[in-house]
Amino acid sequence: MQCEIITIGDELLIGQVVDTNSAYIAKQLNKIGVSVYQITSVQDDKSHILQAFKDAESRVDIIIITGGLGPTKDDITKRTIAEYFNDVLVRDEAVLENIKILWDKYIRQKLLQVNIDQALVPSKAKVLMNKLGTAPGMWLDKGNKTFISLPGVPYEMRTLLSNKVIPKLKEKYHFPFILHRTLIVYGLGESTLAARIESWEDALPKHIKLAYLPNLGKMRLRLSAKGFDENQIRNEVQEQIDKVLPLIEKEFFGYEDEDGNEEAVVANQLTKIGKTLAIAESCTGGKLAQLFTSKPGASQYLKGGVVAYATQSKIDVLNVPEQLINEHSVVSAEVASAMAKNVLKLYKSDFAIATTGNAGPTKGDSNAEVGTVFIAIATADKVFCEEFNFGNHREKVINKGVNKALEMLQKEIFKN
Amino acid sequence: MQCEIITIGDELLIGQVVDTNSAYIAKQLNKIGVSVYQITSVQDDKSHILQAFKDAESRVDIIIITGGLGPTKDDITKRTIAEYFNDVLVRDEAVLENIKILWDKYIRQKLLQVNIDQALVPSKAKVLMNKLGTAPGMWLDKGNKTFISLPGVPYEMRTLLSNKVIPKLKEKYHFPFILHRTLIVYGLGESTLAARIESWEDALPKHIKLAYLPNLGKMRLRLSAKGFDENQIRNEVQEQIDKVLPLIEKEFFGYEDEDGNEEAVVANQLTKIGKTLAIAESCTGGKLAQLFTSKPGASQYLKGGVVAYATQSKIDVLNVPEQLINEHSVVSAEVASAMAKNVLKLYKSDFAIATTGNAGPTKGDSNAEVGTVFIAIATADKVFCEEFNFGNHREKVINKGVNKALEMLQKEIFKN
Repeated sequence: MQCEIITIGDELLIGQVVDTNSAYIAKQLNKIGVSVYQITSVQDDKSHILQAFKDAESRVDIIIITGGLGPTKDDITKRTIAEYFNDVLVRDEAVLENIKILWDKYIRQKLLQVNIDQALVPSKAKVLMNKLGTAPGMWLDKGNKTFISLPGVPYEMRTLLSNKVIPKLKEKYHFPFILHRTLIVYGLGESTLAARIESWEDALPKHIKLAYLPNLGKMRLRLSAKGFDENQIRNEVQEQIDKVLPLIEKEFFGYEDEDGNEEAVVANQLTKIGKTLAIAESCTGGKLAQLFTSKPGASQYLKGGVVAYATQSKIDVLNVPEQLINEHSVVSAEVASAMAKNVLKLYKSDFAIATTGNAGPTKGDSNAEVGTVFIAIATADKVFCEEFNFGNHREKVINKGVNKALEMLQKEIFKN
Repeated sequence: MQCEIITIGDELLIGQVVDTNSAYIAKQLNKIGVSVYQITSVQDDKSHILQAFKDAESRVDIIIITGGLGPTKDDITKRTIAEYFNDVLVRDEAVLENIKILWDKYIRQKLLQVNIDQALVPSKAKVLMNKLGTAPGMWLDKGNKTFISLPGVPYEMRTLLSNKVIPKLKEKYHFPFILHRTLIVYGLGESTLAARIESWEDALPKHIKLAYLPNLGKMRLRLSAKGFDENQIRNEVQEQIDKVLPLIEKEFFGYEDEDGNEEAVVANQLTKIGKTLAIAESCTGGKLAQLFTSKPGASQYLKGGVVAYATQSKIDVLNVPEQLINEHSVVSAEVASAMAKNVLKLYKSDFAIATTGNAGPTKGDSNAEVGTVFIAIATADKVFCEEFNFGNHREKVINKGVNKALEMLQKEIFKN
């Protein structure tokens, strides 16, 4: 069963908005056995949208459309859908009722005609009620093909997808089971890893696909398979994993969680062992803390963090001795270690991690070469630090710093 | 002049990776007057890629391809390009030399055949040397059409795009000038705004396009125009802005910066007036700090921040009196104000901002309703706080909190 995702909006094509919806939809569809054949982003333009519908219908069974459902004039998706289905727009009273409820609760202004018009839907469409927003989702059958239109606002789209779309798709189609298992491998470049596992890879059964996904200092090795017998698929993939693991014994780190979040591995383990974490960040600037706090449940294990960006703040807030900074420079193992130890004390946590480095483009407060990063980990009874050079591109240095910090943290926490 | 972006990779279609490259490329191309007609993400599959090339060539003049250029077996882009151009792959000695240099510097292992093979390029291609990585960019002319293939690693792609692709495109084509001006409007819903400016919008000249871009609590109103006479375009758009501003006088906040980053407005102003900022975050969890530190130059104005996630850390690190928390709850105006005042003192900054709230999904340490957020701003001589409810979706609450904090901060800082 194949799907195509069509995202509509000039804002995508001028680069004002990054399309995060498609990846989310693709991931959720994959879990139920629907492959995404293609993702197509098109303009707010009727003839372009119609062409995209036609092309997609010729290629796949399920067409998911997002975007273009707001109340204003640049939104033409609904009228274009009606035209594509030789249909007319009619008012849906339940949608109008929902709009009124949202309006009373959040806007408290007079309902305008454009808002009332949001209750217009193609007469052939089944409404997917969107309780979080005024634009309804729509489901249109065309024989064995299905068109689904969802609002572009990410949390509205996500909620409709989980609560309405996935259950209805499972009702209509009989899906194969798709399994992805992703192995995290540290310390091997893409080509070295490929050479190491070449004979295993060459012997992989045809229906098990392998992909190398490099990501700043780590590799993800993804095995994918699909079929109607879930147990068989699981066993076959496990069998291949059992074969490859001995080849990467030292470098294999673990499995990626379902959503690909490495911090989730740390979060889950900390929650499981009932320990807490504090974070002191200089060059990573809050990105580590933000990764953890973006997910629910962070209050279970995260005490908090300090973004000690300016040198003086390392002294004022983290009590790093000024003399230590003068002697070793603010980008040094000594300062990183002091930051980790002190943030551990400040937050009374079980683990602490600290980063200090120079992400560039200029040298800033230290004389350290651009790209130099020190990462230290402290626990009640010890502190240790590693030095890295992540090259001369700011974004890369920050991201590699975050990845490496997560790696060190994982290694330390899993000892417990 | 129109372009199509083709991004290649199974990882995009299973949702493991969000395609951020396309938005970046689109934004850069727009600046030189190239419109992106469509963005298409396809699988690592020869026939699918060939079809996408063919379709794109029939629609546009410039085809930019990213992804599928790594050293391992799942990468077939280069061979497919050679096939599409009836070409053969030949070794490029300069590319091989670059690979050897990178290898010696960063990998320090034996060069493998797969790495040597990265120096293979279609004989008809002009190489765009990628000094940051081993996969070269490629430029292929086909009459007046151009195919450009770039590596998928974002910072490699970005560097090649700026340094090689844009200059070469400007040499080959004569581009019109494209202007986007984006007005930030606070406090009006999409439909209320649309009704307010309806007669102005209806009278817009045909070649000036208007788009409404809602984003959690604020609206962006984008005017776009293109033509060969830059001055004329600028004047015409300015004329329309001068007409619309009186209609939204109270709600108009300012213009979005070129890259759409609202924090850049705060950052630039702070740098300009030589003042500093400190941040205390509870529910926004480091996201505010991370927004500022992700860009170079943050050390000019950002002293740092505290992520006081656990209640106890507000007491231990930010010296919020325990009694205040007991009396008013941890999610309260009193606590937010104390956090802002104390982080100002701690970091000795000129401005401070603090967030405390309940992002959900559960009530956590406070009894505040999910979605309740208090945001406080402190300066040397005052502190004030506002209360919000951002609904019951965690991601939305955090993002709205960040947006609202930036809005309050902008308003306060621009008074100076």
